Amino acid sequence: MKLHETKTTPNSRRVRVFLAEKGIEVETVEVDITSMENRSDGFLAKNPMGKVPVLELDDGTFVSESAAICRYFEELQPSPPLFGTSAQERAEVEMWHRRMELDLAVPIMHVFQNTHPFFAERIEQLGDYAERCRKTAAESMLWLDGVLADRPFIAGDEYTVADIVALIGIDFGRVSGIKIDDPLTHLKRWHDEVSARPSAKA
Amino acid sequence: MKLHETKTTPNSRRVRVFLAEKGIEVETVEVDITSMENRSDGFLAKNPMGKVPVLELDDGTFVSESAAICRYFEELQPSPPLFGTSAQERAEVEMWHRRMELDLAVPIMHVFQNTHPFFAERIEQLGDYAERCRKTAAESMLWLDGVLADRPFIAGDEYTVADIVALIGIDFGRVSGIKIDDPLTHLKRWHDEVSARPSAKA
Repeated sequence: MKLHETKTTPNSRRVRVFLAEKGIEVETVEVDITSMENRSDGFLAKNPMGKVPVLELDDGTFVSESAAICRYFEELQPSPPLFGTSAQERAEVEMWHRRMELDLAVPIMHVFQNTHPFFAERIEQLGDYAERCRKTAAESMLWLDGVLADRPFIAGDEYTVADIVALIGIDFGRVSGIKIDDPLTHLKRWHDEVSARPSAKA
Repeated sequence: MKLHETKTTPNSRRVRVFLAEKGIEVETVEVDITSMENRSDGFLAKNPMGKVPVLELDDGTFVSESAAICRYFEELQPSPPLFGTSAQERAEVEMWHRRMELDLAVPIMHVFQNTHPFFAERIEQLGDYAERCRKTAAESMLWLDGVLADRPFIAGDEYTVADIVALIGIDFGRVSGIKIDDPLTHLKRWHDEVSARPSAKA
């Protein structure tokens, strides 16, 4: 197997942190998005959406979408479980996983895409939409602070893929001036703890 | 179990179509979003995001997010499989499931939210963002037409949750004037076929 990724992108980091938590090593191939390698014919043959990461399986199949890649490794090696251990737990983890993605990580990514010079030549940047996303991210962090007041991790007692998505989303916010406000002490406590895990450096 | 839903919303329809394909019947409770029942204290106790559908389990747990609810039923009753049958197949179905959601259903929903009078008092509508989403949806349909030129269903030979998400996304586009353009004959063929399944009426 080979993981085609771009070290600096949050979606690539998701898979690396996930693999580090599992203790799985996979050969990686760096895709240079600054030179638009992800829009080359060679890469589009791997993922027509032009997005990293992409997992190349030994039979030549390409699997893209970080969540799909993480689920694949969860099945190959269930321990430690990062998507829950019973049907009900897996449903709850998936609920939190999606909330962290759709209401936190995606808005933070869209602030970046609609304000950062890197994207200025790549898309038509929409300032009003970026501001709405910034507000959504702030609201989500405020809400998450309350959630984390009485549980160690986002989905409950165990570290899961929901923590990975939230950590990486929030960390990626730095480049857009998004950070955890001082009064959000529970979110800060959680962020310190998940950042101290060895996997956070992956 | 009880499914709290709003008949007219695409996310509620996702779960109903999924259950119809499985042949599972679940008691439903209608949530009146026109009177903002979804923002009431009673509903926010079920889902603090204020979104339908929400599955109430017999032990009093609430699971929201249509994808999480569908996965839960897939585990309770694996047959017929709608998320794939092997680790690799499940990874590929999840890839297509996410593509259909993030690049087709979500943009179509955002066109609606940013242009329809129903949302005019609920959010600050952003016309430029709506236009970008309309363009994304059109590009996704064009690309999907090519994908469906040589396979019966979106993820391959079998009907899956990716077809459900795409069907409901596209159908919901009608209210915003989004439809399958005449030249997209493969997408049209697929749409006719999945629309003819009894589940489509759920």
